[in-house]
Amino acid sequence: MYVTKADRTRQPFNKAKIVGTCVRMGASRRVAAKVAEAVEARVYDGIETNKILRIIHQQLGKYVPSVRFHIDLRRALSLIRPTPDFERFIRILLREHDYEVSPNQIIRGKCVEHEIDAIARKDGKTFLVEVKHHSNHHTPAGLDVVRIARAVLEDAVEGFEAGLNSLKIDGIIIVCNTKLSKHAREYAECRGILYISWKLPLDNSLRMMIENKKLYPLTFLKNLNMGTRRKLELAGTLLVKELVEEQPSELSKRTGISIDTLRQMRHDAREILSREESILS
Amino acid sequence: MYVTKADRTRQPFNKAKIVGTCVRMGASRRVAAKVAEAVEARVYDGIETNKILRIIHQQLGKYVPSVRFHIDLRRALSLIRPTPDFERFIRILLREHDYEVSPNQIIRGKCVEHEIDAIARKDGKTFLVEVKHHSNHHTPAGLDVVRIARAVLEDAVEGFEAGLNSLKIDGIIIVCNTKLSKHAREYAECRGILYISWKLPLDNSLRMMIENKKLYPLTFLKNLNMGTRRKLELAGTLLVKELVEEQPSELSKRTGISIDTLRQMRHDAREILSREESILS
Repeated sequence: MYVTKADRTRQPFNKAKIVGTCVRMGASRRVAAKVAEAVEARVYDGIETNKILRIIHQQLGKYVPSVRFHIDLRRALSLIRPTPDFERFIRILLREHDYEVSPNQIIRGKCVEHEIDAIARKDGKTFLVEVKHHSNHHTPAGLDVVRIARAVLEDAVEGFEAGLNSLKIDGIIIVCNTKLSKHAREYAECRGILYISWKLPLDNSLRMMIENKKLYPLTFLKNLNMGTRRKLELAGTLLVKELVEEQPSELSKRTGISIDTLRQMRHDAREILSREESILS
Repeated sequence: MYVTKADRTRQPFNKAKIVGTCVRMGASRRVAAKVAEAVEARVYDGIETNKILRIIHQQLGKYVPSVRFHIDLRRALSLIRPTPDFERFIRILLREHDYEVSPNQIIRGKCVEHEIDAIARKDGKTFLVEVKHHSNHHTPAGLDVVRIARAVLEDAVEGFEAGLNSLKIDGIIIVCNTKLSKHAREYAECRGILYISWKLPLDNSLRMMIENKKLYPLTFLKNLNMGTRRKLELAGTLLVKELVEEQPSELSKRTGISIDTLRQMRHDAREILSREESILS
């Protein structure tokens, strides 16, 4: 039995992957195994992976209520506006992971000025941060992204040595919502360029950084229409958990969204954020 | 009196520029002055530069017949298919300007393999060539293009030093059909990256390289429909002058285009290629 991936390549159906997906979505091992059974009974040769994902959502919703309130995280990331929202989202994410983060700015290199998406400091080290967003979450970041990062780092470091900027830099980190191509990973590793992509590094991928701190973006919510979301984003609210932290009445004043709508969203947000218990059960 | 450029900025109408354009299109100084007079009489405040170009073509066609057979060269370049036609066009252009040119290939750098559009040798020096095509001829090549070129050059040179390739490289040349942004030019000059763009370098721009050797692409011809052009390109014919060099009967066999059509195109091609006399008159 084969499945068809988004890039139209085929690979064998793998039940263990379904189990893993369910666990990441908040299912216990027992529930995950049940869902995987139900999915296996419904797949057919050549089925597309996004169809499988829909079946998982449908089945899992019976056991893990929060699944009914959100979409696939990877797709949610692809829906964030690249500028300024995704860049800001990444700065928040780094801050929550104990980086000291400065916002986007212009750095004078040896040859020219470069626009940098953020500067992040941790354990006495300073990194330039390049954020790369793809609205198609199947598009890997390619060699160009890392070659540009390399040239930026070189120019910024030489700018410091020449006294043109006062930022002693130890490295550069690329953060992107998709994979990096194999070629791009090889180049990055060879040149000491760090990266945080959807799946890698294994111990600290973008997905893990989001899930470990429950830093889900608003686009994660299933029942949030785009108009309401834009109002929240324009008012500076980017995260699901901010819907819970702030009083609906306050948030309503700040955004112009009705209190009733905000109460409903708060309910959905709570369901998503409280699912840790079901993961641990 | 102001004119509106393609990027929507305005600048004062400049009659001397009209004269220059006409001379480049094959007019004598005397004819160019006449045409500039006629254009000046018809412009109005805020007129778009592409409208001015149309008036020039119209007026100039009365004196320089070849103008009736071709379009604006810059637009013609934008219409060439980027891959493989524009890349091949640039390789021909470099060859005709005394470079020894090898076709596109993969070079093993220190970290990864890089796809190079050409390698060009002249006066004992070896250059990597990066070709950049924009289908909108008003889009300047930006900083990314030169930063990528820098990283490619560094990796290729270090690959040679590490014994991973056998190509002793002296530099890299970017060739593009548009301008380079100011930022990109500054970076290129600072890093010793060479470039040939539409207008620069002043003594050897892409335009001059084409005009000096009359290496007009087929897209330059006004009366050539796209289907016929595709047949020629697929058969390996890219240049206007190739229509004159080969017998219509031979070319017809090779392309499947009727001899009558080829004879008509040959006539147009001759008109364009013979206009040197009118420039010198």
